[in-house]
Amino acid sequence: MARELVILKLGGSVITDKSKPFAASVETIGRLSEEIAHANFKPMAIVHGGGSFGHSVAAEHRISKGYEGSGQLMGFAKTRQAMMQLNKLVTDSLISHGIAAVSLQPSAFIITANGRIVDLNTNIIEKLLGKDLVPVLYGDAVMDEKMGFTILSGDQIAARLAIALNASRIVLAVDVDGVYTADPKLDSSAKLIGEMRLRELRELVKELGENRKVADVTGQMLGKIEETVSALENGVSIAVVNGLKPGRLLQALKNRRFIGTIIRP
Amino acid sequence: MARELVILKLGGSVITDKSKPFAASVETIGRLSEEIAHANFKPMAIVHGGGSFGHSVAAEHRISKGYEGSGQLMGFAKTRQAMMQLNKLVTDSLISHGIAAVSLQPSAFIITANGRIVDLNTNIIEKLLGKDLVPVLYGDAVMDEKMGFTILSGDQIAARLAIALNASRIVLAVDVDGVYTADPKLDSSAKLIGEMRLRELRELVKELGENRKVADVTGQMLGKIEETVSALENGVSIAVVNGLKPGRLLQALKNRRFIGTIIRP
Repeated sequence: MARELVILKLGGSVITDKSKPFAASVETIGRLSEEIAHANFKPMAIVHGGGSFGHSVAAEHRISKGYEGSGQLMGFAKTRQAMMQLNKLVTDSLISHGIAAVSLQPSAFIITANGRIVDLNTNIIEKLLGKDLVPVLYGDAVMDEKMGFTILSGDQIAARLAIALNASRIVLAVDVDGVYTADPKLDSSAKLIGEMRLRELRELVKELGENRKVADVTGQMLGKIEETVSALENGVSIAVVNGLKPGRLLQALKNRRFIGTIIRP
Repeated sequence: MARELVILKLGGSVITDKSKPFAASVETIGRLSEEIAHANFKPMAIVHGGGSFGHSVAAEHRISKGYEGSGQLMGFAKTRQAMMQLNKLVTDSLISHGIAAVSLQPSAFIITANGRIVDLNTNIIEKLLGKDLVPVLYGDAVMDEKMGFTILSGDQIAARLAIALNASRIVLAVDVDGVYTADPKLDSSAKLIGEMRLRELRELVKELGENRKVADVTGQMLGKIEETVSALENGVSIAVVNGLKPGRLLQALKNRRFIGTIIRP
């Protein structure tokens, strides 16, 4: 039986402007903080993406490819700082809205092997949740048992956290309205899928895997959707909402009817 | 047999102005970064104190006393942010001087019981050191098995790290020249002790414990000295240098003759 715990994932493309390096969407972060404070949902853990922080420096030094030589080390160090800088912005904003938000650096306690989390020690997170504190994690540059180091996505952290903590729901705040039947920009008959089952998602992922065009078409939801499959298999529901449209995150957190997509196990 | 690893502890009173909240000594941090870069000592891990960051907010909310009620939660969250802010300043400065410095949040992987570190997982730190990266830890507000939460000092982290990593030396950069025979401000016959043994330190600590006046007299070195006793017992040498005086840290890191105090196991 899942517990009343929500893992909220704030997409990097929601909280930053991905077209410019180090461009935090300060107003959006403020509004989302307000909606989270208003929802007053406890217990909750937050995970955010890296967006335009870290991405350019990580790409420049091929951090996600793993350790290739000492020439990457300064790039690795700078990537870590960039991730931390965005996390500080987000956590400061949450605190200024009255949320007892506590930054938790993923790379300080998570190791991957070939990019996948090896084991997730939830001891400290459970202690934070037990005191009504809200842990705030993020996509980070982590040490990897096989590759030396790599990039760990916020999506993978959110899915693994949900499973390890036996959460009832993951709320994904993204920059699109939800999962569509086709690309609404290209196909006027495209419809937002209000509710779907894991089985339907599996078919979609399979289709996406076979047809890369479709992957693009659904608004690059492939990675996010794929990461959530493991959580769904473990009984976690997924709510996908547009974090750029005011009020939708609040509705989703309050578990009211909301514009977006619910994926049930 | 100890390995050629140095744990460098930068005192909070060296890198901040303790008389004012959130007053980083930016110039000193820059100069120390330069000396560390110049020494080019590897492998090395750095730990810094909290100084005027975090101290006032932690004191206001009695964070070191442990969890007393939900009224402390925002204070706990703010203390964490303050610690992280100072750490970001220090790590940014080290990076800007060409050191591949990697921030490592202690509260993300260390739990205490009644203020003492329960177990120290060095897996990630070893991986960082193995890649010639320089982990930068700091005094932090951590979860505690008995007290709910508390403050963990940079001094305790430095001593425990030195033992767990089998380091050869701890270098303590403090705001005094070293350990004196008496308070040089009160006693003109006071002499800087260039070299001492654990046995002599034990006597001094015992004396300090019995006579609080003496504790003040040695420049509030009691806490720092007491924390290092466990490291000394495990074969770690301690070098105490004045971080406020240019060049002394460099000399100590290069293991040359330096003005300060060496304490041998």
